[in-house]
Amino acid sequence: MSGGPYWRAGVVQSVAPPGTTDLGPGYLDPALLPVRSLARAYARALDEFGPAALTYGENRGPAPLREALAARAGTGPDHVLVTAGASQGLHLVAGTLTRPGDVVLAEPLSYDYGLRVLTDRELRIQAVESDADGPVPGALTATARRIRRGGERVAFAYLIPTYRNPTGVTVPAGRRRALVAEAADAGVPIVEDDAYAGLRYDGPPEPPSLHALAGRRGVVRLGTFAKTLAPGLRLGWIEAEPRLVRRFATAGWADSGGGFNHLAALAVATLLAGGGYDRHLAWLRGELRARRDAFAGALGVAAPHGGFFVWLPAPDGDGAALRERAAAAGVSVADGRRFGAAGAGAVRAAFSFHPPHQLADAGARLAAARTAPARLDVASTSD
Amino acid sequence: MSGGPYWRAGVVQSVAPPGTTDLGPGYLDPALLPVRSLARAYARALDEFGPAALTYGENRGPAPLREALAARAGTGPDHVLVTAGASQGLHLVAGTLTRPGDVVLAEPLSYDYGLRVLTDRELRIQAVESDADGPVPGALTATARRIRRGGERVAFAYLIPTYRNPTGVTVPAGRRRALVAEAADAGVPIVEDDAYAGLRYDGPPEPPSLHALAGRRGVVRLGTFAKTLAPGLRLGWIEAEPRLVRRFATAGWADSGGGFNHLAALAVATLLAGGGYDRHLAWLRGELRARRDAFAGALGVAAPHGGFFVWLPAPDGDGAALRERAAAAGVSVADGRRFGAAGAGAVRAAFSFHPPHQLADAGARLAAARTAPARLDVASTSD
Repeated sequence: MSGGPYWRAGVVQSVAPPGTTDLGPGYLDPALLPVRSLARAYARALDEFGPAALTYGENRGPAPLREALAARAGTGPDHVLVTAGASQGLHLVAGTLTRPGDVVLAEPLSYDYGLRVLTDRELRIQAVESDADGPVPGALTATARRIRRGGERVAFAYLIPTYRNPTGVTVPAGRRRALVAEAADAGVPIVEDDAYAGLRYDGPPEPPSLHALAGRRGVVRLGTFAKTLAPGLRLGWIEAEPRLVRRFATAGWADSGGGFNHLAALAVATLLAGGGYDRHLAWLRGELRARRDAFAGALGVAAPHGGFFVWLPAPDGDGAALRERAAAAGVSVADGRRFGAAGAGAVRAAFSFHPPHQLADAGARLAAARTAPARLDVASTSD
Repeated sequence: MSGGPYWRAGVVQSVAPPGTTDLGPGYLDPALLPVRSLARAYARALDEFGPAALTYGENRGPAPLREALAARAGTGPDHVLVTAGASQGLHLVAGTLTRPGDVVLAEPLSYDYGLRVLTDRELRIQAVESDADGPVPGALTATARRIRRGGERVAFAYLIPTYRNPTGVTVPAGRRRALVAEAADAGVPIVEDDAYAGLRYDGPPEPPSLHALAGRRGVVRLGTFAKTLAPGLRLGWIEAEPRLVRRFATAGWADSGGGFNHLAALAVATLLAGGGYDRHLAWLRGELRARRDAFAGALGVAAPHGGFFVWLPAPDGDGAALRERAAAAGVSVADGRRFGAAGAGAVRAAFSFHPPHQLADAGARLAAARTAPARLDVASTSD
């Protein structure tokens, strides 16, 4: 991996310790970031839109990007708000739709920093019983009822149905339909974090979004260009009912500053309009598929159908020991407990950041660390 | 004024009704937005930093921009956090340092959307007695004491000491020193919105910031490139004590998305490093001075020494009637009540958005509207 001389602390968010293959962060490989395309996109946006690209933008985001995103979703631009990334979108939604002390329902293994955005708002996270396919039928209703009986308010359910961070699994279409029907019956809005949508490598076709399946009511969907284009743009979007889009866009912060990332939005709009985004995405999927194949093959696990992650239970259920053995073998992985107490026996490994040969090497080391004999326990050897 | 074919609703935040010279919004003239310089800056940033410009950035903002801003302030980069504009900065500060229900002290005439950011957080705004030079000595202490006696918490004082929106006045150095000493004694932190700093046309030199005068403790200063470069960048910064900078930067939202506007920050960093920003600012000051001269001259009022605004009391104290007469003459101005109840008898006019000849014309119309005989009052003509 080489991100150039500026890939260092103080410029980028996270840098691996020397000598380590860091499978921790869910980052794109620097080699996959489209530096030249984006340079052209900014030049084109400033050339085409001129000073209109540099003034205060429409609060909901500029029409060219909202129209392009709406066309892809089969809706109209009134259903789209441009954000400064999915996490800013979640922060905005939480700030608008909740009050401190409210409860948010979430899968027991969920995106750690997403949950942090919610707990920063002083929301309480309540896990909903889930299996490999997502929340089990009836669990959302039962949990919401129990919480309400205790006098607390359920603000929404925060779900990651597509190539979920951290487990990599996707809620199938049937379970999605049941889930949105159940949420509507229970009066629980859904916030659908769809950061990995579009990153399918094989397996079943990507199911429709919860937002689409719900008839575009009762579900706020968060999208982002951080996983398909570049996180440094700080650009994403929200799909929601027009009345909610308007409400998000009338925050004082938006009235003061205009659109949340106006110039970036127009730059990416030119990429969508010219077909450059779709070409990039097709290429990116191929690159990520090769990385997944190299990693999952060397590791000897079932390959996830999309996204960035392999979720890896420790054979003996001791995730901390697995992390230690992996680190001793020069491979860093994310502590499963970051994503919920249910993750204590596992680790998360991202195959998005390194080239295939390095992932094959790291996968083989991690496989060896995984099958290494458990350390002898002092207590058990003393008798 | 011409902003090109894309200067229209759906792309930009606000468009004047046809046939009207709109002196309402505090926008830069489209002709003053440095389209070519910024196109070069983005190209240079992507060329120089490569993929490091497109990944998740350091949460506090990339070192090249933080170092350049710190050097200008005479501090170190640990004192600087890069934001997505002053309003995002205020939102972040309010979200970090307050609890809903807290009280914020403010000048009786203050930035309306800044106050909206605060009331969105469910903070209560309490005006502090002020004269033309800013909060009067002792008023901050007396107000804070009264609020605390009532059992409420004073979160901070939100002040705009430099070319204040909406009145255009600057708190002089002596009053600044007294103010920071008083705030420190009263235990009231200050949030200094310094959006118009650097936009001096004549008059006394710009006093040091409250942040600098306070020894860089107890004052959080908000800066922005929206008024000196381009609002569509969504780029600003915070100057504060390192411990507060670190605290702002560990919001879940920052841990999730990294720096608040990473690529824009690196683009502007190249402008600061190459001297382009200073050259632009010198040119911009000249352009804005010419606009101010044309407007204030035609209007027949004292010229403000900096910033974007002329604050215009109605001769008969009836701001609404003045706005109506101005509108009838084809000139739109901002309702003084937007900035506080104390503004009912006045209007705010921005000289930042139009070329000098149009401002001279609008200034003359507004002067005529201002001196037009008061409408005959039905009650007074009936006797």
